[in-house]
Amino acid sequence: MTMQAALDALSSLLGNRLSRSKSDLDLHGRSEAWFAPAPPAAVAYPRNTAEVSAILKLCHAHGMPVVAFGRGTSLEGQTLAGPQMLTLDFRDMAQVLQINDADMDVVIQPGVTREALNTELRATGLMFPVDPGADATLGGMAMTRASGTTAVRYGTMRDNVLALEVVLADGRIIRTGTRARKSSAGYDLTGLFVGSEGTLGIVTELTLRLHGQPEAVSAAICAFDTLETAVNAVIDTIQLGLPMARIEFIDPLAARAINAYAGADFPEKPHLLVEFHGAEAGVAQTAATFGEIARDHGALDFKWATDADERRALWTMRHNAYYACLNLKPGARAITTDICVPISRLAQAVEETAADIRDSGLLGPIVGHVGDGNFHSLLLIENDADMIRAKEVAARMSERALALGGTVTGEHGIGIGKKSYMPAEHGEAWAVMGALKAALDPTGLLNPAKLVP
Amino acid sequence: MTMQAALDALSSLLGNRLSRSKSDLDLHGRSEAWFAPAPPAAVAYPRNTAEVSAILKLCHAHGMPVVAFGRGTSLEGQTLAGPQMLTLDFRDMAQVLQINDADMDVVIQPGVTREALNTELRATGLMFPVDPGADATLGGMAMTRASGTTAVRYGTMRDNVLALEVVLADGRIIRTGTRARKSSAGYDLTGLFVGSEGTLGIVTELTLRLHGQPEAVSAAICAFDTLETAVNAVIDTIQLGLPMARIEFIDPLAARAINAYAGADFPEKPHLLVEFHGAEAGVAQTAATFGEIARDHGALDFKWATDADERRALWTMRHNAYYACLNLKPGARAITTDICVPISRLAQAVEETAADIRDSGLLGPIVGHVGDGNFHSLLLIENDADMIRAKEVAARMSERALALGGTVTGEHGIGIGKKSYMPAEHGEAWAVMGALKAALDPTGLLNPAKLVP
Repeated sequence: MTMQAALDALSSLLGNRLSRSKSDLDLHGRSEAWFAPAPPAAVAYPRNTAEVSAILKLCHAHGMPVVAFGRGTSLEGQTLAGPQMLTLDFRDMAQVLQINDADMDVVIQPGVTREALNTELRATGLMFPVDPGADATLGGMAMTRASGTTAVRYGTMRDNVLALEVVLADGRIIRTGTRARKSSAGYDLTGLFVGSEGTLGIVTELTLRLHGQPEAVSAAICAFDTLETAVNAVIDTIQLGLPMARIEFIDPLAARAINAYAGADFPEKPHLLVEFHGAEAGVAQTAATFGEIARDHGALDFKWATDADERRALWTMRHNAYYACLNLKPGARAITTDICVPISRLAQAVEETAADIRDSGLLGPIVGHVGDGNFHSLLLIENDADMIRAKEVAARMSERALALGGTVTGEHGIGIGKKSYMPAEHGEAWAVMGALKAALDPTGLLNPAKLVP
Repeated sequence: MTMQAALDALSSLLGNRLSRSKSDLDLHGRSEAWFAPAPPAAVAYPRNTAEVSAILKLCHAHGMPVVAFGRGTSLEGQTLAGPQMLTLDFRDMAQVLQINDADMDVVIQPGVTREALNTELRATGLMFPVDPGADATLGGMAMTRASGTTAVRYGTMRDNVLALEVVLADGRIIRTGTRARKSSAGYDLTGLFVGSEGTLGIVTELTLRLHGQPEAVSAAICAFDTLETAVNAVIDTIQLGLPMARIEFIDPLAARAINAYAGADFPEKPHLLVEFHGAEAGVAQTAATFGEIARDHGALDFKWATDADERRALWTMRHNAYYACLNLKPGARAITTDICVPISRLAQAVEETAADIRDSGLLGPIVGHVGDGNFHSLLLIENDADMIRAKEVAARMSERALALGGTVTGEHGIGIGKKSYMPAEHGEAWAVMGALKAALDPTGLLNPAKLVP
């Protein structure tokens, strides 16, 4: 049998770093989302690029499909495998290879997590700001084009990956990009691989842009009577070019969840949660200007957090919003989905979504990275009937995003969860994605059945 | 004859908007650079996307290659045609279609120039900041991934194109991206087309990010004793996260040229020319901080330009640096070339280049967008022997860029001028570019012989 031959060859190559234990297969077959588990045939733990290349050559020769795995925190089933597939776990490729202070960049292996990188950077005065919440690997974050709370200031993974080393389906190793800040030397292959969810190649090294740790940080939370006034405050803030590091939205239900979970006492109203980074005087001025804009739009109940402990408490609350929301219905699970629209359509998109969730009978708080026009709903489900309704609500969110000129996902990606919306979002361009996939992976070995037709 | 059949069909489609006049062919066969003229067989002036699609269907059916043309300001021969080719001139597709104030984006046709767009935006408080110097079309700027003096603050075309409409080689029309600020919905086709120099498709509509016109602007020029101290001042400035809108370098020879051309009296030393955008107080503080950093590195001869006239005078000088440099040898032409390196290697790259130019016996001032690690040399040539030496110097610049971890072009692109460096810069990744080209343009109709293998 071909698969057995492939596994034998992989086993000679990797020894006990090829695992077929049931617990390992189960662990790699799970996802954080609602998808049915799909464990692989085996899990490989490569140690370096040459090994990844050797593995892919073997898989190519034997026709065995491959999926890369970081921390398994993706939300649309991107890392799910299947009984004929090999999972490549990057646990043993998690080194920071080179910190280039003067150039503000870093070269790392794909298994390094966001928090591990920032711990390593602490003494340098530099940081990697992209923050999707989970402590995902940076390889995984690059592959889903992750972003999160700080994208409004620092951009997404698209903006912060300078260069990649990639192993292609047939085992060839290529480098895309250089450490130069910009280039016009040919097609932007780095940009093509970022967000490709492991369907075009396996990333074995990343060069990332770093940013200076801000001299001063200030944060605030304030309430609004309506969603629309909150969003209008965001629009004015962005238009004025105020350098916001984060500008997050929390809906009344999420505020209630946070109150219950964290013992807070926020009014059950729409809130904005903001953070400013910069020099001491600049931050103070930006914060004051934001305060004026927000109050002009009727903001109330300002709470400022200038010292580190208060700020940490505020962002811990935001980052725990997922668990706080789950706690609205103890025992429930959540379908988490995200869309992104032009900011002028954001109030409408959020209001229609909230109304749709209420009408469906589900509980579903909404939180979002509103500076980008991106928001999430956490649809709580207790049984199969809830699941069906939740999927319907999620489907209508995606349709709404497209109707308002947006995208079906701002940051979670496609995987298997959102593949059915690709024709509606991209039309003929989805066929172009398929043609690119066929050009780089003609036999369909890399993360099959995800993202492309 | 196939070409005659193609021209007949195009002529029925376009009437007098298909031109075969000698002056028109000559005009479209010229480039701003040193390449031999290469006029097309005919020039088409399409009026809308449907016409571009119809033209490409005809060219596809008849096997006639096509090159797009904006203002012909590219520097590596990107728009050169050939006796069997059709040039598509976007003169008649130069409308601003939609200005979305609240979303800070704009939808335009590809023939709109940078200055025309900013004139149209003036009353909105918004602007499109990417500024390569020439008043190029935005379609052309997207296709070469142009940048220029403001990239250090606002990014390049890569960062400022949100979405495209593209006509493929076979006439199919696709849309890439949406007006949402970010997306994880599949491959970044927008990023793939930006910088593809018309080899993958013909852009017929662009959605661009806009930025707020700054409330306050301040600029300054200062001299340094050495290149190294100037570059170190830049590194500290960037590391501190100072929001510089422009940070330009001028070498002693360029300073001499500007003195002679503009009647200025700058010392013949390395200079930095900087600009700050922002709120009144922020700009004043940023300028003061920059002043301190620069003086710590030994800067002298500060000239501040806070009022609009002084600022205009300063940047006019910078923008006229090309003509000023040409004037160092009246009657000479220039080979202009650019490379981009990690900023920690910039002083070395510029110093070695300046020494190499001196050793070659040529006159070649150096100016650069040093915040990005990008610089240009203008190699003055009077005869064939100069031309040979200049090409040798340019070749060594490219090799130096690669040796220092950089790229052979930060912003001018590849065209035919830099194609020979692609294997050295990209290795096997150049073959990947070729595979993508073959996937989207299997018969090689789009801007053949440029950029890809």
